[in-house]
This record gives sequence, structure tokens and C-alpha cells, in this order.
Amino acid sequence: METVNLARGTRDFLPEQAAARHAVIDRLRAVFARHGFEALETPAFERIETLTGKYGDEGSKLIFRILKRGEGSERGETDLALRYDLTVPLARVVAMNPGLRMPFKRWQIAPVWRADRPAKGRFREFWQCDCDVVGSTEPIADAECLATAADALRTLGFRRFTIRLNDRRLLRATARACGADDAREGSLLVAVDKLDKIGRDGVEAELRERGFSASDTATLWELLSVGGTNAEVLARTAELLGARLGEVAETTAAVADLAAVIELAEALGVPAGVIRVDPTLARGLDYYTGPVFEIEVDEPKVGSLAGGGRYDKLIGIFGKEQVPAVGIALGLERILTVMEDLGMLPGASTRAEVMVGVFDAAHRAPAARAAHDLREAGLRVELYAGAPKLKHQFKHADAIGVSWVVLVGPGEARRGTVTLKDLRSGEQIECSLAVAVERIRGGGTTAAV
Amino acid sequence: METVNLARGTRDFLPEQAAARHAVIDRLRAVFARHGFEALETPAFERIETLTGKYGDEGSKLIFRILKRGEGSERGETDLALRYDLTVPLARVVAMNPGLRMPFKRWQIAPVWRADRPAKGRFREFWQCDCDVVGSTEPIADAECLATAADALRTLGFRRFTIRLNDRRLLRATARACGADDAREGSLLVAVDKLDKIGRDGVEAELRERGFSASDTATLWELLSVGGTNAEVLARTAELLGARLGEVAETTAAVADLAAVIELAEALGVPAGVIRVDPTLARGLDYYTGPVFEIEVDEPKVGSLAGGGRYDKLIGIFGKEQVPAVGIALGLERILTVMEDLGMLPGASTRAEVMVGVFDAAHRAPAARAAHDLREAGLRVELYAGAPKLKHQFKHADAIGVSWVVLVGPGEARRGTVTLKDLRSGEQIECSLAVAVERIRGGGTTAAV
Repeated sequence: METVNLARGTRDFLPEQAAARHAVIDRLRAVFARHGFEALETPAFERIETLTGKYGDEGSKLIFRILKRGEGSERGETDLALRYDLTVPLARVVAMNPGLRMPFKRWQIAPVWRADRPAKGRFREFWQCDCDVVGSTEPIADAECLATAADALRTLGFRRFTIRLNDRRLLRATARACGADDAREGSLLVAVDKLDKIGRDGVEAELRERGFSASDTATLWELLSVGGTNAEVLARTAELLGARLGEVAETTAAVADLAAVIELAEALGVPAGVIRVDPTLARGLDYYTGPVFEIEVDEPKVGSLAGGGRYDKLIGIFGKEQVPAVGIALGLERILTVMEDLGMLPGASTRAEVMVGVFDAAHRAPAARAAHDLREAGLRVELYAGAPKLKHQFKHADAIGVSWVVLVGPGEARRGTVTLKDLRSGEQIECSLAVAVERIRGGGTTAAV
Repeated sequence: METVNLARGTRDFLPEQAAARHAVIDRLRAVFARHGFEALETPAFERIETLTGKYGDEGSKLIFRILKRGEGSERGETDLALRYDLTVPLARVVAMNPGLRMPFKRWQIAPVWRADRPAKGRFREFWQCDCDVVGSTEPIADAECLATAADALRTLGFRRFTIRLNDRRLLRATARACGADDAREGSLLVAVDKLDKIGRDGVEAELRERGFSASDTATLWELLSVGGTNAEVLARTAELLGARLGEVAETTAAVADLAAVIELAEALGVPAGVIRVDPTLARGLDYYTGPVFEIEVDEPKVGSLAGGGRYDKLIGIFGKEQVPAVGIALGLERILTVMEDLGMLPGASTRAEVMVGVFDAAHRAPAARAAHDLREAGLRVELYAGAPKLKHQFKHADAIGVSWVVLVGPGEARRGTVTLKDLRSGEQIECSLAVAVERIRGGGTTAAV
């Protein structure tokens, strides 16, 4: 006997969990379609050069590499890699298909793989649910992503959540105001991105270590702690940045875009007050260029359920021309965990409605015929496939959660009937198959007969 | 600009193809549920030792290996591998979960990966749709697999197909009758498995090369060319094998099982005459132990759409005890190719039903509100996300295939109405949003107003 285990950081989903996942995914698909997004599928692995250099240093280390076939394999050469997210593959698809009609709105729900250190709630295989609008710089595209994700969460039963909104252009200006040149801008963003985890003191220490002065960080904290209504935060941020850098076109554009995104997202059904401009929101990935956003459930505090942003320069890395794009990814695993914890998971609607038992070995064929007829009538039917011992079969019916069992013994076979047993009441009747179908569909008990 | 391409042997599925795939998968899921199968999900990669030694020499060469993380990676060490099929992962799940209720009937629809040489119709990533019954040696389990696959093909619109049925126990006895010991049995099976590809002469040459005598192969051809009704083929095969080997319990059991599988599959709705006992059917994989089967469409000749068999010894490799199992896998790629060639693909039912255009930049918010209201009414709505040029928008509406466009200009915004344009007739009306919903739902033209 071999030892047997899963690969680290991966999971199986047994029927109850798998059914819940499918039910949630089906609902998300319906929301995405309602918002005019279309399905796209890409392969699990890409050429390695497609993925490298897109996720920053930290991200690149987490890419799973596949051993090259044939020559070079004994030296450990790799030419393929498992996808790390669904965004870079989308960018590749857009670059390879210049005939795509724009704006191209696509959804994709699929697993991605990261060689992260497994931990509670952190897996090496996890599913992302992405919506992206490609080929538009209009704020209506960003707003549609927010509205779709909000609609998705609402459809799944989430009532109170916050959408944090910021803009990479404001963060860049902030970095500039703190004395960071292009080279040091990245390290400032990386530090700010850790604010939730290591706190203000941690970020301060990290920045001082990287050569930012006390006056630089004082400027940073002033800019990051701007508060008030969204309009006030935007106005005050613009004012502070203007005082330090003069009027910068990028800052002006960012402020106008964020205001438009908020207005349009609310017109698209995001409740007023849900969106909050948050100058501290950085988002880790390298490729964002404009608005960035994250959605958090207010109660309980479970972290981010969705995140995304605008990436106007990514597709141009692959293609002949720059194609602007914006998107959002919902994290299926965290959503499911929260839904399970809060008792929000939908029940499995795909479970068998009736079990046909096998009376004895001589009556397998009549049982099979009854199962077939019940299925033709549209019911989900478990035909007991084990050895024909009646006691085992009733235990099995209980275990799979059906309320009805159908049996065909010698008498029923002769008379062309079936015995229908209601497991809830324990009562049973002999009846035609048509009557059995009616009972099972109606969900009523046999008592009424 | 980087060169940009897919990994060899992989494909993207753009919206129209992806929607067709999803529609087919949804139908298969419904069929599997109707037959009492439950969903299971397993990870894309397994520990490498889980997969090695399960698929025969040819198969093992095709396993994609993933580079180990950290230490050893520079030497090309691998510790993970992409799944090669869905059966071995199922066996691992069963061995790891002794509490599973038996018989355990599960379906899984998921991609698998094989480092095969890419060719027309042969991919390195392809999807399998599997149904398996675990924990039963009863022929009713084998019959349920056949009936489910047949129901699946019928549900997808296939009318005429043949189920070829054989049994590994009969093939083993055939090998014995041809003078093969345990060691040479495998090479005989491998040769017979190629009969469709290299013909009788090719198989003859291969076997003679491997040391089988002319008399051995004469016996083989006599056994493989037995014809007649299923009952006649089974009786004659038993008779020929009995004459050479004496009465062998395994042969007797195989003949009885195949007869029972046929009877029960027909009781479960497989039309009479569809199942054909075929002594030449070998199936490539190592792990089969009993009945094996393949489903082929009769017209046009497109090869096998599904295949499977009984594997009573596989799970025992992983677990403390032997657990019998039988299953069938439908090949999604070939099914889709044939359906496309024959014009059988379902239309995409998830496409937007109406497009809301943006009259001009000053009227983005009313357009967003109209889109939201139409979605709340249950419609799938594309809100045009590009720059607000009306000419582009009507082209886009045409391209995505909607029949209706809604616009909100300054007049409509003032009056609380929308303009609804029927792209088929070219007519348009100004109306309330409720009337627009009614029109779009009814599918009627504006002409009736």
C-alpha cells in the first residue's frame, strides 16, 4: 500500500461542498451575463515567458513551473507555467485576437495556482471569478465592474459591504510628493500595501529604512489620513498634492475619473455610501495604472472578497498597441468560507429526489425499468447499485437524503405497479408509476391516499 | 513587444465557443444528476507518486511534471504532476475518505493534461466528463454507467450510436489460449488495442515479432472474429475458450456479467441493438479488470465519444482494502467537434438581450440607471462601455447580436422615458421603461404601438 495524500495546499471537494460551489458559481454566471459579460476560457498553463515579469518580484516567485518535455528536461529546464491569475491570460488573448469587438466584456471563473506557503484560508489552488472590460478608458467601464461585483455579492446574500476605491495616479503623485523618484515609487507602494498587516509604525520603519526622511513620511501620513465624504477626500487630496507638486494633469484626471466612477456605479445600483474613497488602498500587483478597488464585508470582518483595477498598459506588453482595460476578481474560496460560516450556502438542488431499491437479485431489471421511467418523467433518481440487501438500501436512502423509495417486488412486477415508501412518515402504498411520480413531485405524503 | 502565443496543444475558447461548451456541460450535469450521480472536485495537480505507475509505460511518459519548490529545484526535481485523467484522483479520494457512503456515485467534468504530440483533434489540455460507481461489483453499476452515457449523448442530440462491450477477463483468457503467459499478456493486449489503427496485418506482424507463433495468432483471429447476436457471441466465445483452457471460473463470470449488463442497460433505457459485444475491444489503460466499453457514433464515423470499464483493483493500490469500481468518461472535445460539424450546437442563451447606448457624455448616468432598471427586471443587459459615439454603438449592438437598443437623451431624461429601437425593423418608440421591458420580453416589434 502506498501512502496517499493530496498535494500540499490543495483540497478535494466532496459532494456536499462541490454542489454548494457549483450553485454559487451558477449564480455568479447569471449575474455576469445580466451585466452583458461573455464567457472566455483559457488554458491552465501558458508559455513561461507570458507570465514572467507581470506580477512583481514577490509574485514571480510563486509561479508554478512545468518541466520541459524531451531535451533539457534532465537539466530542469521549464517552458510552461500554471496561470497565476486570469488577467494576464486575458491580456494575451486580446493581443492575439485583434478582431475582437471592443469594448470586450468577458467573465471567467476558473482555478489559478500560486506556490504560496499554505496556511489557514490560503491555498495553492484557488478559484477566481473575473469580470473585465477591455478596450475602453471610460469611467463607465470601471463603474460596471464595481456594479457587477456588488450585484454578485448581493445575489449571494451579502447585505453590508464596503467598496474601497483609490487611484494609482494619486498614489504615484503621493510618492512624488514624498520625494520618491520612479525607482523608489515601487518600494513606497509596497510599504503602503502592507498598512493593514503591519500598521503605521511598521510602514514608517520600513520607509525610513529605505531612505525616506521624517519629513517625507510626515507628508505621506498627511495624504493618507485625509478623511470626510468622498467629494471632500478627493478635493482635499487634490489640494494637498497641488500645493506640493503644482497642477499635475494626471492628478486632475484621476480625481475626475473617481468622481465619475462613483456617480455611475451608484446609477448602476450600488447603494449610496457603499463606495468609500480610501487614500491608503494600494493593491499589490504591478500592472495597475488607474482606479483600484477592493470590496470588504462590513460584518463580520473577513477581509477582502473582491479586488481589481484599471490596467491600461498590460495588453500593450503583448500586442502591437496599447489596449486599455479594467477588471475585478471575486475570490471564490473566501466567499464560500464566509457563506459557510454565516449559514448562507444554498442547499444542493441537484440531489436525487427518489431512490429505487432492488428487491432481490431476480428483480434488478424491473427496478432498472422503474428508475428509467421515473427519470423520463423528469425526476432525479438514484438506482441502488450495491448488493440487493434491503436493509442496506434503506440506510443508503437515508444517507443520501431522499424522502422516497420505490420498490418492485414479484407482486408489483406481476401487477405492473410499484411500492412507494415515504421515509418521513414511514407509510407506503402500492400504486402505478404515474401516481408515484405525482406524489414525489407534489412532495405530499402517502397519507392522503 | 514580446512574441505572444499559446502553449502548444492548448486553446482559448472565445465567447461563442465558450458559451457552447458551457451549455453542453450544463446539460451533462443535469443528466448525471438525473441518474443519481453527485459532484466531486479534485485539484489539478497531485503528488507525483499518486500518478506514476497507473497508466502503463506509454501513459506515464505523457504526465506533465511540475518543478519542485525550493531545494532541489535547480536539479530539475519534480514533486507534483498535472492529473492525467479523473479516475486515479477519484481512487485517491476514495482511499483517503473511508467514511464515504457506498455505493458512491460521482460525476466530475474537468480538464486533464497529457504531453501528447499535438495533432488535429489531439490536445494537451482537454476535458473529460466522468461518471463512476464506486463500491459495487454488481452489473447494475456497469449498466448505470452505460445508460447514463447513452442518456447524455441522446440529450445532446445524438440519435444513432453503438456501445461496444467486452471484458478484460475474456481478453485475458484469449491471451492464455494464444499461449501468452502473464508477462506476455500485456503485449498481446497492446497489439489488439491497435487493431483499429494498424489493421489485422499490422497486429499479426507485431505479434509474430514478439514471439507468438502462427498457430497462436490463428487462435487469436478465430476468437476475435466470433460474430452473431450478443448471446451468440458470448456463447461461442465461452465454447472456444472452454475447448482450449477447460472451464475457467473467470470466463464463466465474465459471460454472465456481460449478459446481465446488457439486460440491465436496456431496462435503463439503452435502446435494444445499441450494445454490441465486440471481442476485439481492448482499451489501452492498465487498470481495467472486468467489462470495458466504448461508445461510437454510427454516422458519421468519428471514432469513440466515450469509453470506460471496471477497475476493481485500482483503489486498493492506495487504500487499506480493495474497493471495486466502474466508470465511463465522455470526451468533451470530440463531442463538441462532432456537434459543431453536424450543426448540433445549442445557441448561446446567455447573450445580452438588449443594449443600452450612451447618448452623449452628459447622459452616462441616465443610461446607467436604465441599464440597472432593465437588469432588475430580469433582463441581460449590455451597457455600452466605450466612448459615447452613437454610430459605434449601433455597430456594437449588431456585433453582439442584440435586437433591441435603449437610449436616454436629454428629452427622455426630462420626461422620464426611454427610446426603444428595434434593430430588426428599424422602428423606434419613446416609452416608459416598463413598456420597454414588456416589448423586449415579448420579442414583439415596435410596429404594434
